[in-house]
Amino acid sequence: MANMNDVAKLAKVSRGTVSNYINGVKIKDILAQRIEAAIEELDYVPNQAARALKKQSSDTIAFILPTIWTPFFAELTNHLQLELQKRNLKLLLCNSNNDFHLELEYVKMAKEEKVKGIITISYSDIEPYITSNLPIVSIERYFNQRVPFITSDNFVGARLAAQQLHQRGSKKLLMILRDIPDNLGIYERMNGFIDYCKHEHLDYEVYCDTGDSLGFASRIDAYLQEMYKQDCPFDGIFAVTDRYAEYVLHSFESLPWHIPEDVQLIGFDGARSYQNQSLTISTIAQDIEKIAKMSVEELINFDNQKERQNKHILPVKFLEFQTTRKLK
Amino acid sequence: MANMNDVAKLAKVSRGTVSNYINGVKIKDILAQRIEAAIEELDYVPNQAARALKKQSSDTIAFILPTIWTPFFAELTNHLQLELQKRNLKLLLCNSNNDFHLELEYVKMAKEEKVKGIITISYSDIEPYITSNLPIVSIERYFNQRVPFITSDNFVGARLAAQQLHQRGSKKLLMILRDIPDNLGIYERMNGFIDYCKHEHLDYEVYCDTGDSLGFASRIDAYLQEMYKQDCPFDGIFAVTDRYAEYVLHSFESLPWHIPEDVQLIGFDGARSYQNQSLTISTIAQDIEKIAKMSVEELINFDNQKERQNKHILPVKFLEFQTTRKLK
Repeated sequence: MANMNDVAKLAKVSRGTVSNYINGVKIKDILAQRIEAAIEELDYVPNQAARALKKQSSDTIAFILPTIWTPFFAELTNHLQLELQKRNLKLLLCNSNNDFHLELEYVKMAKEEKVKGIITISYSDIEPYITSNLPIVSIERYFNQRVPFITSDNFVGARLAAQQLHQRGSKKLLMILRDIPDNLGIYERMNGFIDYCKHEHLDYEVYCDTGDSLGFASRIDAYLQEMYKQDCPFDGIFAVTDRYAEYVLHSFESLPWHIPEDVQLIGFDGARSYQNQSLTISTIAQDIEKIAKMSVEELINFDNQKERQNKHILPVKFLEFQTTRKLK
Repeated sequence: MANMNDVAKLAKVSRGTVSNYINGVKIKDILAQRIEAAIEELDYVPNQAARALKKQSSDTIAFILPTIWTPFFAELTNHLQLELQKRNLKLLLCNSNNDFHLELEYVKMAKEEKVKGIITISYSDIEPYITSNLPIVSIERYFNQRVPFITSDNFVGARLAAQQLHQRGSKKLLMILRDIPDNLGIYERMNGFIDYCKHEHLDYEVYCDTGDSLGFASRIDAYLQEMYKQDCPFDGIFAVTDRYAEYVLHSFESLPWHIPEDVQLIGFDGARSYQNQSLTISTIAQDIEKIAKMSVEELINFDNQKERQNKHILPVKFLEFQTTRKLK
């Protein structure tokens, strides 16, 4: 296989000139043409690892997320990758499952400049390892002053969910959530919901589960079966994610009350399992495409000298589907 | 910042010994301990690009797929990544959208050993660029004798769908598919469906759409609205994917016939949008976790000297949900 010396010899230039050409250093046009011709003739493949060593930078972005296997994360990853592709950047997917050590490995890769930077939507405690010159952008979780931070307006979104339930005729509201440590977005949603209920003097309750993710569907079901067996104590339910709202919808299939006639239901996220999927559950929708765009832009423009934080709180909106009644 | 010479000096070993240690070459325990201590004291970070250059291999696998944004691909990617993580391998995600040039770039990366290999589930024509020493595994699409190939048994699965519809009381069957060039899996499903219908002398029809993906939902809807407006010509529908079955289910919401009472419906894939999601549509389920496991195993054991092809056709099974009637 041809090496750089062969190219230099054939092009009648020095090895250093070939090296400069390959690494994108500006050289004379006439030399560049000769090198190009030689590369083509010899079918020379520049060694990428050698180039990376020289340039000390990579065209890869690590995306750390808890799992790819939810509509929200699949849709977000799709948009992130399309944004990166526009800039000839690649995406290294790190399904962290909130594994601290795995996430640290990616931070280390970024420090060694093996990846260009990190976009993270995770909740383990890597903050102490983030130095000021590490290109990183955080979605949903606040780290510190220097890390650009992108999130949806969870407080206003949850307030809007309570308001929509109320305006469409619900009088007693239930909120369903699962406590995920360090997931401040969830707490913001709880606060927004409570804020509206207090402001309007509505009866409300918050069902806050503290168990694991996989058993949550059956715990919600047991709770609702017991609660709604004989009576209909809450005529409006706000589930903190669309997934939990799906669990609620499923439970009501075997209850004597109907959605939305007796009980209205609103979820949160508005993610689709595939492009143009028809949604069923009324929801507070995040602007997932915009989250992706801003994350990539902030990472590209990352500047460790910046003092002020780039904090973006993106608006959300109510989408009406089949689990709420019409506004009168 | 400390370099390898500093480590060698402090550990009182040669630079070559440090290099061997870092690159995983076996050295004496006592020396390894001294080097470890020196690395820790100096906070030395080995340069990854330099290591890659030395080892001429990467710990990254490129996964080429049309999009991450469907339940099937999200679930498959999830399992692939978990399998790779067990082996300390990383996943570079290539959302190709069947873009030929983008896919070629990944093939080039693999040839330059910037990635260790490729797992592909795509339908563009990269075959001429695949050389016999390129570690590659193909899911669903057959390339050639030397490329390990993993697929579900599409023919038997579609036959099973027709059989289940028939055994559960349907007499006239409709199959709905969209023609995707070079997607042989789809054709296999069509052949399996037709094979059963002919064998059992059933009336059947195949609705084969040739338009684009995004408009398919509305074209199916127009077709079904017209067909079922006054009459119920087919009492069993097999949709070639669960997604298309979702479109069918949606259309029947505004038709005078009910699923599964008047019309039974079976999809194909059995993918979930998230772990433990409750499915609604009866389906022929692929073993997605097994597809992921075999793909990674075949890639790890890739051997360009092998003459025989590693072809794996994995069994599928019928899952009964709410769109079919009980077996009598």
